[in-house]
Amino acid sequence: MRGDRMSKAPRTAISPTREENYPEWYQQVIRAADLAENSPVRGCMVIKPWGYQLWENVQRALDDMFKATGHQNAYFPLFIPMSFLEKEAEHVEGFAKECAVVTHHRLEPDPDGGLRPAGKLEEPLIVRPTSETIIGATYAKWVQSYRDLPILINQWANVVRWEMRTRMFLRTAEFLWQEGHTVHATSEEAVEETEKMVEVYRDFAENWMAMPVIVGSKTPLERFPGAVETLSIEAMMQDRKALQAGTSHFLGQNFSKAQEIKFQSESGDIEFAWTTSWGVSTRLIGALIMTHSDDDGLVLPPRLAPTHVVIQPIYKDDSRAEVMEYVQSLRDELAAQTYANAPVRVTIDDRDIRGGEKKWYHVKRGVPIRLEVGPKDIAAGTVFCGIRNQPKSVGIDRAELVATIGEKLATLQQELFDAALKMREDNTVELTSEAEFRDFFADKGDTAITGGFAWCHYCDEDSLQPLLKELKVTIRCVPRSDNATEGTCFLTGKPAAQRAIFAKAY
Amino acid sequence: MRGDRMSKAPRTAISPTREENYPEWYQQVIRAADLAENSPVRGCMVIKPWGYQLWENVQRALDDMFKATGHQNAYFPLFIPMSFLEKEAEHVEGFAKECAVVTHHRLEPDPDGGLRPAGKLEEPLIVRPTSETIIGATYAKWVQSYRDLPILINQWANVVRWEMRTRMFLRTAEFLWQEGHTVHATSEEAVEETEKMVEVYRDFAENWMAMPVIVGSKTPLERFPGAVETLSIEAMMQDRKALQAGTSHFLGQNFSKAQEIKFQSESGDIEFAWTTSWGVSTRLIGALIMTHSDDDGLVLPPRLAPTHVVIQPIYKDDSRAEVMEYVQSLRDELAAQTYANAPVRVTIDDRDIRGGEKKWYHVKRGVPIRLEVGPKDIAAGTVFCGIRNQPKSVGIDRAELVATIGEKLATLQQELFDAALKMREDNTVELTSEAEFRDFFADKGDTAITGGFAWCHYCDEDSLQPLLKELKVTIRCVPRSDNATEGTCFLTGKPAAQRAIFAKAY
Repeated sequence: MRGDRMSKAPRTAISPTREENYPEWYQQVIRAADLAENSPVRGCMVIKPWGYQLWENVQRALDDMFKATGHQNAYFPLFIPMSFLEKEAEHVEGFAKECAVVTHHRLEPDPDGGLRPAGKLEEPLIVRPTSETIIGATYAKWVQSYRDLPILINQWANVVRWEMRTRMFLRTAEFLWQEGHTVHATSEEAVEETEKMVEVYRDFAENWMAMPVIVGSKTPLERFPGAVETLSIEAMMQDRKALQAGTSHFLGQNFSKAQEIKFQSESGDIEFAWTTSWGVSTRLIGALIMTHSDDDGLVLPPRLAPTHVVIQPIYKDDSRAEVMEYVQSLRDELAAQTYANAPVRVTIDDRDIRGGEKKWYHVKRGVPIRLEVGPKDIAAGTVFCGIRNQPKSVGIDRAELVATIGEKLATLQQELFDAALKMREDNTVELTSEAEFRDFFADKGDTAITGGFAWCHYCDEDSLQPLLKELKVTIRCVPRSDNATEGTCFLTGKPAAQRAIFAKAY
Repeated sequence: MRGDRMSKAPRTAISPTREENYPEWYQQVIRAADLAENSPVRGCMVIKPWGYQLWENVQRALDDMFKATGHQNAYFPLFIPMSFLEKEAEHVEGFAKECAVVTHHRLEPDPDGGLRPAGKLEEPLIVRPTSETIIGATYAKWVQSYRDLPILINQWANVVRWEMRTRMFLRTAEFLWQEGHTVHATSEEAVEETEKMVEVYRDFAENWMAMPVIVGSKTPLERFPGAVETLSIEAMMQDRKALQAGTSHFLGQNFSKAQEIKFQSESGDIEFAWTTSWGVSTRLIGALIMTHSDDDGLVLPPRLAPTHVVIQPIYKDDSRAEVMEYVQSLRDELAAQTYANAPVRVTIDDRDIRGGEKKWYHVKRGVPIRLEVGPKDIAAGTVFCGIRNQPKSVGIDRAELVATIGEKLATLQQELFDAALKMREDNTVELTSEAEFRDFFADKGDTAITGGFAWCHYCDEDSLQPLLKELKVTIRCVPRSDNATEGTCFLTGKPAAQRAIFAKAY
């Protein structure tokens, strides 16, 4: 029996729905899609195969973009000597409260029959929360002359930040990420690199994740600890909260001075170098989930989906051979088509489970296109086709399906982007007074979805802090586009040269 | 001026040579090829871009092979609660002495103006030395029924073993690796998996690394802590020492009992599952270096070389445009050829440095084929071609070069394998008495290259230990092939059913 024809009353595969309880819906989508689970280690998660394939696709796409912009990968130590962190004051302040500290290098039996740490280290080691300090110390050895510059290196790695409140993908004690670290001879080059990489992130977010983002500068209080300027991409989730999805930092000479990254310039002077760093993490998977998924589970943008098309053969014992032969040839034909310059990824799900259960398995995992093929479809030369963002499956001529599969995937990718953009635009306002601001961000109860992005002129970040803390709102960024209008500060009424985006945030 | 035509007396790019001091030669090859360097963190290395590209190529090839054999990737926590390690007695014994232990989760200012660890953890966390325990605890939740089996998962990760004596790539406190962890319903299936994966490693070592290996079983004293059987691939380095390049463990029910990985069988009984684990690490890069490199530096098997062909344009100011146009079209033609089912990887090195320096730069980095092209070559329709394992460069017709580039790379790959196999065969003996054994493994001075692989019948591993310890020799494995001969133990003279390979080892 077909899954589509089973249920009589409308229902959702995920409970609660987004409207009912968005944070819990998020956890249930992850569970239903089999993306990840909490581990026995506090704050650490297990990324399961379907979730890890998504991350692999993210990695592959970004890695190609990094290499196309002249970067190479390398690998630096997991551990940072404690003394290295002490060198950059703002940096250590930013990370000291969430460091995993290694103090011993072996275990020995304890008198109770268990184990205890032994072999105390002379200097404690920090499990890297980010690698500016250890990489900077290495670069200091590599850089002697302007001829050694620029250094354009990226690292794929795990990092640890001992967060007290964790949520899968969004905030975990250990997470996977990439961190680019570059060194330049001039401030201009380093600024250019910072901007180039935030643009790579924007391109990736919008064109691969189908997630519209706003590129902007962080205000001083929101910057990366030790940075002169932090650029970020900010996206709106379906609960209208902001999520910072990637950052690119211009570090000026702060780290090069702390770490003695010096070089002899063409004119023979010894100068401190200019550095940048930039990163995205498995947090992107959280952003992906919260941007597109619906009350039936995960929705994947085709460019990142591990599987584009899943085929469910439907047969009884006497029709098995015929149906399997048909779906295998269909699979081969579809896999010979291309989407986004790569072969269409097709699998056949021939597991011996009920058709309805199988349908929902793939719906919940976000497979973009689901096909059902049984003897009647074969006789009619059609397949029964469900597209993940469409409410109904429809019969379609087999040849037409094969000919248009790439187009269907491209359409879905575009529709997901368009829907996310519309959601953001529908929930973005311009506010000019404290009363409007308070009303927009007022709490309407624990699970109610309210607020959104507010563009507001402001004159002084510090003076806003009491109000922002009261309402649990943050300045997300000062957007780089559409922001050349003068006005007056929404709070103080003083003249203000620019607007920022205010929102509640992950 | 051409690099090849510069030097009048023979010399080597690496000093000391292999004969003069093999361990120091190894370090100098790594330095000259810019593969890695020691980091400021004790025992940890920095893998530099050229070394990391090699590792990426290793990863890509192995990952494809794992997926082709039905495995998926996932990711598990970096940290293991101390109590998890306590559960499997042999396992903890094997790793307790080299564990990095996290005991605190933040830093606070100390009275002297520095930092000190704070926020003591209730239970210390171990930085994973290997993940059997944490992955097993997760699998225990995933496995309920025989329908959940097999589980076939691999993880690419960093691990930490606090080694006291470290050497880059071969033995470092932190290293990168993959670890496969599988669960099966029957002993037979798990044994089959163990054998399948050691065969994947053999295939990779021989056909990608051009490194001949012997597949065998580890003797009980040499097994992985907690394993019922350990299979390994063993290679001979150019100093005739053995290097264990990959292992595949049949864990029986040892870990499933310690971690309660149980399932309901088809007949309804509750049974403990059967598990395996298997891994290779960045140690493979060390093996690659020591198998093929020569006294001029690194030699790379083409299948893993980041660059197959480097073109050095040679010009003066007035011939620059002509030469660059020529080498760019040559690059495009070569890159349109295929080798090992992928495009030939070609780069142009147009840096403004002396030709000789540039030549040696690429020789030391092991680029398989180096081409020089100047105005005279263009006039003659030839290029000047150096193949990394050939002493002399030769002029060759351009069209012929393009037509045969894939073949040349394939020939080099095969020649490297053949040379390594010959080296191993030339230094493998069969020994039947203690006197022969002592003579073969006698120390001939600190840096002399002696010994090799000795096939010996033996009856009892324990009785050999005093002799083996005295001579610093280990049993590498009981080979799976060519080993069905009966004989007498070389030490005791007692009847012995099988032979093992004895060698000094890394």
